[in-house]
Amino acid sequence: MARQERAVRTRRAVVEAAASVFAERGYAAATIAEILERAGVTKGALYFHFDSKEALARGVIEEQTTRDHRVPREPKLQEWVDTGMSLAHQIPRDVILQAGIRLSGDLQGRALFGSAWPAWIERSTALLAEARERGEVLPHVEPAQTAECFFGAWLGTQAFSEASSRWSDLSERVCVLYAHMLPAIATPAALVRLDTGPDRGARVVREAEAERARRAAPVTAEV
Amino acid sequence: MARQERAVRTRRAVVEAAASVFAERGYAAATIAEILERAGVTKGALYFHFDSKEALARGVIEEQTTRDHRVPREPKLQEWVDTGMSLAHQIPRDVILQAGIRLSGDLQGRALFGSAWPAWIERSTALLAEARERGEVLPHVEPAQTAECFFGAWLGTQAFSEASSRWSDLSERVCVLYAHMLPAIATPAALVRLDTGPDRGARVVREAEAERARRAAPVTAEV
Repeated sequence: MARQERAVRTRRAVVEAAASVFAERGYAAATIAEILERAGVTKGALYFHFDSKEALARGVIEEQTTRDHRVPREPKLQEWVDTGMSLAHQIPRDVILQAGIRLSGDLQGRALFGSAWPAWIERSTALLAEARERGEVLPHVEPAQTAECFFGAWLGTQAFSEASSRWSDLSERVCVLYAHMLPAIATPAALVRLDTGPDRGARVVREAEAERARRAAPVTAEV
Repeated sequence: MARQERAVRTRRAVVEAAASVFAERGYAAATIAEILERAGVTKGALYFHFDSKEALARGVIEEQTTRDHRVPREPKLQEWVDTGMSLAHQIPRDVILQAGIRLSGDLQGRALFGSAWPAWIERSTALLAEARERGEVLPHVEPAQTAECFFGAWLGTQAFSEASSRWSDLSERVCVLYAHMLPAIATPAALVRLDTGPDRGARVVREAEAERARRAAPVTAEV
């Protein structure tokens, strides 16, 4: 294995181990000793990538928005819906997202290592602004306000689902949330075109993964 | 002071002190020693009312739904809106509600001392069911589902507001949340009759307090 590839794998193992410890215990109770044990790497290897617990938390937060399966869509509002639905599908399966939720909501800790909230709200605002330019949203909708409102609602839906089913009903609950908010956001013409079924997230993730695999496969037909 | 009145005051002081410690530190980090110190009562007095930290947390949780300023309304949907708006107004001012939020959302702790969530959802479901009987809600609305959906959204809005402004923008944010959800819940005829202004919560609380004061005042006109 090339040295660089090994470094990438080590970093990955450390971020995943850190995420699993943060997700389980929260930032304050997490220890580097436990992260080391779960990662199965040497202390030197961990400190090569992250020089403190704080840096590990920052590393996990930075990973958050890279977990998003973006597939460009028309209407743009479908892409906005897809972000929330694919995240809902992934959270029960992805410890990095679980850790990001816990860390981002840690009001003491976030002063040290930041929060993924602003990045999600920014992405959501941008998609709603594009949707507005295309006439897909109702005239009174202000993208930044709606993005923050939806984000707060999504966050609480996620917390409620964690408490009631360890996220196993999250896709269902997020689908109900969209049904309760979209009539105040989408024009009737855009609304009827939107797919907000509870399995939407799973389908978007599958599609994005197939697309990624297609791109990674060796190209033979091109010169 | 009569013995019973003194006992009520002591209990009140203990619950308030416990709430302030739980709200600040969370359940796990709270100590009875600190609660005693803040309450300014003897250990014996505290243990007369609550025999453990768990019992104190349970006492704070039980207080939650008694903080609600209920004023019967027509349309019933206004009463439903008023519950969420008056809570939003009170949270920045009421440490017992702040503690209830923190305790109810403590996924480890709630196994010991319970959560106020089910009581709020039950109240919300009952109001939505009454509103449905009166034809104020759209035909597809299922009270229990809408109550849970709104509760999750309200919870996240509250968490977002705590993080961004220590709840000082909560009334504003809850007002935006209602604006984004009511069009999927209320019939157009009921919707136009609803008051969802950001100062609605403050007005409801004032009105309920005036009503309570009126009832507590000595009655002279009656025989």
